[in-house]
Amino acid sequence: MPRYKLTLEYDGGAFVGWQTQANGPSIQAAVEAAIHSFCGEDTRLHAAGRTDAGVHALAMVAHFDLSAPKPLERIEGALNYYLRDSGIVVLAAEEVSDDFHARFSARKRHYLYRIINRRAPLALDKGKAWHVPVPLDAAAMHEAAQRLVGHHDFTTFRDTHCQAQSPVKTLDQLVVEEDGAEIFIHASARSFLHHQVRNMVGTLKLVGERKWTPDDVTKALEARDRAAGGPTAPPDGLYFVAVEY
Amino acid sequence: MPRYKLTLEYDGGAFVGWQTQANGPSIQAAVEAAIHSFCGEDTRLHAAGRTDAGVHALAMVAHFDLSAPKPLERIEGALNYYLRDSGIVVLAAEEVSDDFHARFSARKRHYLYRIINRRAPLALDKGKAWHVPVPLDAAAMHEAAQRLVGHHDFTTFRDTHCQAQSPVKTLDQLVVEEDGAEIFIHASARSFLHHQVRNMVGTLKLVGERKWTPDDVTKALEARDRAAGGPTAPPDGLYFVAVEY
Repeated sequence: MPRYKLTLEYDGGAFVGWQTQANGPSIQAAVEAAIHSFCGEDTRLHAAGRTDAGVHALAMVAHFDLSAPKPLERIEGALNYYLRDSGIVVLAAEEVSDDFHARFSARKRHYLYRIINRRAPLALDKGKAWHVPVPLDAAAMHEAAQRLVGHHDFTTFRDTHCQAQSPVKTLDQLVVEEDGAEIFIHASARSFLHHQVRNMVGTLKLVGERKWTPDDVTKALEARDRAAGGPTAPPDGLYFVAVEY
Repeated sequence: MPRYKLTLEYDGGAFVGWQTQANGPSIQAAVEAAIHSFCGEDTRLHAAGRTDAGVHALAMVAHFDLSAPKPLERIEGALNYYLRDSGIVVLAAEEVSDDFHARFSARKRHYLYRIINRRAPLALDKGKAWHVPVPLDAAAMHEAAQRLVGHHDFTTFRDTHCQAQSPVKTLDQLVVEEDGAEIFIHASARSFLHHQVRNMVGTLKLVGERKWTPDDVTKALEARDRAAGGPTAPPDGLYFVAVEY
């Protein structure tokens, strides 16, 4: 059976998340329906990251199998036709070998979190960034972020519903950058726990407000207790940026 | 009578444009209604630029008069309260002298036009950029753009409904920059004719496609005939960026 890899951009605002659920439209179900409309096959789509409701993707990768090969140009064109105005687009379609798995073959995942730090609410970026009206010290946030980089037990930043076997992960990069009123947080790791990026961002925001020091972040990490961490940042600001295989 | 200057960000997608019209919601009418809700006064709002339907603003400037002074913090907070979820936000409110006029005092206006140049349709930037699926040569577009910079009769790039007294304007800057799949066109002048930026962008796109040369742009300019110019680019990609006084 031929296996295909899709690279997808989506606006997560209108979806209950990646994964098919009974309570509303998911990205997975929308793309599976488009594949069915295109070729009549019921197939299962596997993604590099199962993003939550409201989380966006610049280049999510997913794979699926078909019983017979189809031309790549037709796959891309037909899926974009059936997905028109859905908030999901196919950036690329490629044929891959059958040992490729969008989730399990991934070596590194990259996320971006966008904060807009100004008093006024958001118009153009509504739903696309976290609006924080109180002034944040981005340099202090970056300093504190370095306490989280490395091989750690991330229980403090793990959602209580997380299904990962181990809370131990290696965080390769957590960079906080400022550009005018925007704060960008870049996070890279082989894999992340459920809500890990949003829980880290919610904690760094406390440092930005000077409610917490970098040492408080170290203490929270060492507590290995979700209750010791900051609140979960909203999904609006989170983007799945890329995955390396 | 105290005069107030507002700096506004808006998502033009939901509006018929800046100016109050019978056929749908305008930015002017929405802000005038918010001022009325705040203080009960019927006032007239004057803007630096009367943007068209679908055109966005990062920092539009407008002014209005009240019969009695109000605290600036209350103006900003109350207007943002009444404008919530409208797609318009007040970034700043200032008191100005009564010889300030948002439109007539302006010395320089800056616009940005965003093109996303890729085969796939837009998901995250839908309505916020012009999607051009055919490959564009941004360097050629920049070279051609320089033919338009300076003091010229811009009749070729002027909408036939334009009400300006003269088609002669000085274009200070027209820069085409590329960043990955995005092309940014920065235009600056004391003032612009109706649709001038969109008509210049529609013409530069022909150069980007190599259908036109920079010499063709010079010939079109010299023709002083709207029919000699390229098509009008869609409003989605246009942003009123800033105004200098």
